[in-house]
Amino acid sequence: MRTHYCTDLNENNVGEDVTLAGWVNSYRDHGGVIFIDLRDKTGLIQLVCDPADNEQAHKVASQVRDEFVLIAKGKVRKRGEGLENPRLKTGKIEIVIDELTIENRSEPMPFTLGDENVGEDIRLKYRYLDLRQKEMFETFQLRSKAAIAARNLLDSLGFLEVETPILTKSTPEGARDYLVPSRVHNGEFYALPQSPQLFKQLLMVSGFDRYFQIAKCFRDEDLRADRQPEFTQIDVEMSFCTQEDVMKVAEDLLKAMFGACGYEIKTPFNRITYRDSMEKYGNDRPDLRFGLELVDVIDLFENCDSPIFAEIAQYKKLNRIKALKVPGGDKAFSRKIIKELESFVSKFGAKGLAYIQVKEDGLKGPILKFLSEEAIETMKSRLEMEVGDIVFFGAGNKKTVLDYMGRLRTEVAKRMNLIDENRLEFVWVVDFPMFEVEDGEVKALHHPFTMPKNIDEDDVEEIDSIAYDVVLNGIELGGGSIRIHKLDIQRKVFEMLGIDEEEANEKFGFLLDALKFGAPPHGGFALGFDRLMMLLTKKESIRDVIAFPKTQSATCLLTQAPSQVDEAQLKELGIRIRKQPKTDAAQ
Amino acid sequence: MRTHYCTDLNENNVGEDVTLAGWVNSYRDHGGVIFIDLRDKTGLIQLVCDPADNEQAHKVASQVRDEFVLIAKGKVRKRGEGLENPRLKTGKIEIVIDELTIENRSEPMPFTLGDENVGEDIRLKYRYLDLRQKEMFETFQLRSKAAIAARNLLDSLGFLEVETPILTKSTPEGARDYLVPSRVHNGEFYALPQSPQLFKQLLMVSGFDRYFQIAKCFRDEDLRADRQPEFTQIDVEMSFCTQEDVMKVAEDLLKAMFGACGYEIKTPFNRITYRDSMEKYGNDRPDLRFGLELVDVIDLFENCDSPIFAEIAQYKKLNRIKALKVPGGDKAFSRKIIKELESFVSKFGAKGLAYIQVKEDGLKGPILKFLSEEAIETMKSRLEMEVGDIVFFGAGNKKTVLDYMGRLRTEVAKRMNLIDENRLEFVWVVDFPMFEVEDGEVKALHHPFTMPKNIDEDDVEEIDSIAYDVVLNGIELGGGSIRIHKLDIQRKVFEMLGIDEEEANEKFGFLLDALKFGAPPHGGFALGFDRLMMLLTKKESIRDVIAFPKTQSATCLLTQAPSQVDEAQLKELGIRIRKQPKTDAAQ
Repeated sequence: MRTHYCTDLNENNVGEDVTLAGWVNSYRDHGGVIFIDLRDKTGLIQLVCDPADNEQAHKVASQVRDEFVLIAKGKVRKRGEGLENPRLKTGKIEIVIDELTIENRSEPMPFTLGDENVGEDIRLKYRYLDLRQKEMFETFQLRSKAAIAARNLLDSLGFLEVETPILTKSTPEGARDYLVPSRVHNGEFYALPQSPQLFKQLLMVSGFDRYFQIAKCFRDEDLRADRQPEFTQIDVEMSFCTQEDVMKVAEDLLKAMFGACGYEIKTPFNRITYRDSMEKYGNDRPDLRFGLELVDVIDLFENCDSPIFAEIAQYKKLNRIKALKVPGGDKAFSRKIIKELESFVSKFGAKGLAYIQVKEDGLKGPILKFLSEEAIETMKSRLEMEVGDIVFFGAGNKKTVLDYMGRLRTEVAKRMNLIDENRLEFVWVVDFPMFEVEDGEVKALHHPFTMPKNIDEDDVEEIDSIAYDVVLNGIELGGGSIRIHKLDIQRKVFEMLGIDEEEANEKFGFLLDALKFGAPPHGGFALGFDRLMMLLTKKESIRDVIAFPKTQSATCLLTQAPSQVDEAQLKELGIRIRKQPKTDAAQ
Repeated sequence: MRTHYCTDLNENNVGEDVTLAGWVNSYRDHGGVIFIDLRDKTGLIQLVCDPADNEQAHKVASQVRDEFVLIAKGKVRKRGEGLENPRLKTGKIEIVIDELTIENRSEPMPFTLGDENVGEDIRLKYRYLDLRQKEMFETFQLRSKAAIAARNLLDSLGFLEVETPILTKSTPEGARDYLVPSRVHNGEFYALPQSPQLFKQLLMVSGFDRYFQIAKCFRDEDLRADRQPEFTQIDVEMSFCTQEDVMKVAEDLLKAMFGACGYEIKTPFNRITYRDSMEKYGNDRPDLRFGLELVDVIDLFENCDSPIFAEIAQYKKLNRIKALKVPGGDKAFSRKIIKELESFVSKFGAKGLAYIQVKEDGLKGPILKFLSEEAIETMKSRLEMEVGDIVFFGAGNKKTVLDYMGRLRTEVAKRMNLIDENRLEFVWVVDFPMFEVEDGEVKALHHPFTMPKNIDEDDVEEIDSIAYDVVLNGIELGGGSIRIHKLDIQRKVFEMLGIDEEEANEKFGFLLDALKFGAPPHGGFALGFDRLMMLLTKKESIRDVIAFPKTQSATCLLTQAPSQVDEAQLKELGIRIRKQPKTDAAQ
């Protein structure tokens, strides 16, 4: 119905007869001549309806309102001297209209497109209008381009995209499953997959060698800002591979996807061990766009005069005393700001926030009095203190200290404006522990199919796994591992996790069976595609990169899903709705 | 872990040191020398372990059994004179092993790969082993290639792939939905989509202009051989388009996908109207690899001497008398075969199967006696009868006659060996009726969003729609339509379908809303990807082109889904299982 998109046209087309189609972005009447900015997915162009040129078209134009759908035939004309619009790509030309058709009308819009004061609820209810914004379209254009780039890269490396089931059995990620009642087998349920983990491992047992899938995954969890009940992951698995092989594929993949979105990135990425990352940055997803590394100073407090610090310093495995030196921080941070930082860390379990200021006339700070001359001198040189710096201290239980000092590091970086928003700092975090122990319960840090390095180590917390995460600017993009391909190791891991043979057979029997029939060494990774797109398009919310997202209460405001269904449907499924409201007393 | 895949190697590599990895396809001991056929995804190669060359490797080789996983280092050697294996791509070389590692062992296989006598149940239970067959791998390799080709073609035409929700609201395809109980909103349910129909229309209202998605769709229907509870469709929608524009995209898409699988196809495809297809082939998915068109002869029976035929011939709108001439059929079909054909059509409602044989000495057949000389002469010339032909007749109710005569046509073609399995005969079926009337109830033949051509026509059965199906060799690959973009037409169609305003608003309120705010003209199509791959890989069953399919009772024999779940999970979801077994008395 059109000969061109709006911004296909430029001065080279002057004199040509064209047909355009799109929406009325705006219109105005200037001395009887009607000017319409017509919009399509490519952008805007100005239509001119002068009654002197064409009375009929002018008559139609006079009925036009915002968001009407038009088909416009006319001739491309150079705009008059001084009438050019440099803000428009097509600002040097306009279309003199011969024939104008209103293809469809529009009621007044329920909100103004792009108005930042409009609540998200109304935008989600009218999502199809919200998506009319240029920026929205460009976001989904990038998303499509990035997915195509990912697929072509993986295809070129010999990976096959294989679709795995959506109606399947509970998967072992440990989050809550979405269930689907079976009509044929009343009383039984399918589960929607939390990932294609087991299927991709089975495909390796099949000898498919290299698999990928851009896969929908589902978790029925309470939603945070960057979570959705359904999300998309780029899922990759390969056989006869080392950790290095897998990382190389992941790097090539990210390079291709970022490349498709206009970012050149350098590979290979830096690496850091899980333990180093925890000690230096307080977490396992370090933001390396800035320094501010945490420094261990527990040894300096060993025989100090503060009974509290001295006590903490006695247990070097359980506790930490960490210093965060902020260059120039003494000048930048007023007493008020320091109070705010103290209050910030207290939210994460800090009992206080000790600090030392490096003044022209020496160090100042209440904790100095507990330390020996020698300890102070060691600290000065270890931290390379300079006049104008401030050093914060966190002391106590290891987990708590690392957590709040890591958060303090980021908070300080924000306040000191140390974060270059245009930098892309990728890093691999490697050598994850295989297990974590919480309240005496042993859990898999990645998942129970991860290959341990030293399974026979006595201390379970010292068993490492061949697992790796890829982190960008402090955000985990994804991760993976080399998997267990030997039955005896898999059984041992289940045992250590307290999963007895019956439960293991019930839940993962088919995987255990598969390991009996010649499973090759294999490993892989998965990237969170939504989160990746969020970073690539610099969006605040994951909802901005999903065409039809759900709210934090897992509702679709557009379609009103979930909704009530007919009693007859429930009967067919062999289920009924519980009449009693849930109470805390319920199990 | 490997330097090459097995079939990467050929005579040019002789003398090179290589490392290969894969499975033991077979092994044999020839005078103390062990020969192993090693298999990877590319194919086979022969390993040689001679104790004279390497005692250690030979010792390992002696432990090897079928399907063990090996890593083999060695040197490429030309096979000796007369020892070449022309059936192997690598049949002119072999690998003399220096170092052999058993990476994993295998128990004896539960069935022999490729054994056609093995039941499908056991193959599905051990699907990961079933997929080890070369042919299986090649099927999924083609599937992956075809999907990539589809995406690249659509991307090159400016289509964006946009993901639409899986947890959504009931969609209007009319099949049974899979439901997902909501934990957050107890008593409410999501539905899995039967297609992304409404979302893709909304994306057109958003101005996305060109959308596609290779989308998972779900229908909780009783399964036939070529159906699965979840299936994949290539879903396309575009704005400001005519039927011609959409068909062109579909043809280009099929050309690209068939091209990726090694088939060159010619576009544009032939076209036939729905009504012509029904009259000539008895159905709306004609197999055009052979002729045997049905010919209308009702007029010739108008005043015949058979009261039954004469009665039928009186009602030309309701009834049909169809002739199927089979050239050479009189010679080919014995009395026994004719009986079989009669019995065949009787399963589809035929009360008998009249026929005329064209013998050297004239026509023979019981119905000749009812016809006038003139009618017989007209029939002879209309059907271009020749000696050796047989002509079958179907008479009665239009729907029944067209159905069984269409089936007879195909049955006869099979028996006469008229079907060239290597031909690809695409055809567009166009001008579908908008509605069909069944037991007085008006239903949409495509779906209620299809644009009618002549909505104001009095006889609803005479209202055509702008809908089209693409058919290959008698199988519907997919179809589509131009959609309704005007609110008043959409409301009128709902009204004609007996959907009152309340129900329309409840089910499709968001679409009706969207039509108020500047919906552009739009249309699209969807292709069944599984069925397409079935045709492209010449498989009998849709289960052969789905990596982890379900049985006809919608069970996954591999994972045992669906399965029972914990009572606690049901409590959280606010549902319980009905205790009473379903009875026929239940509604």
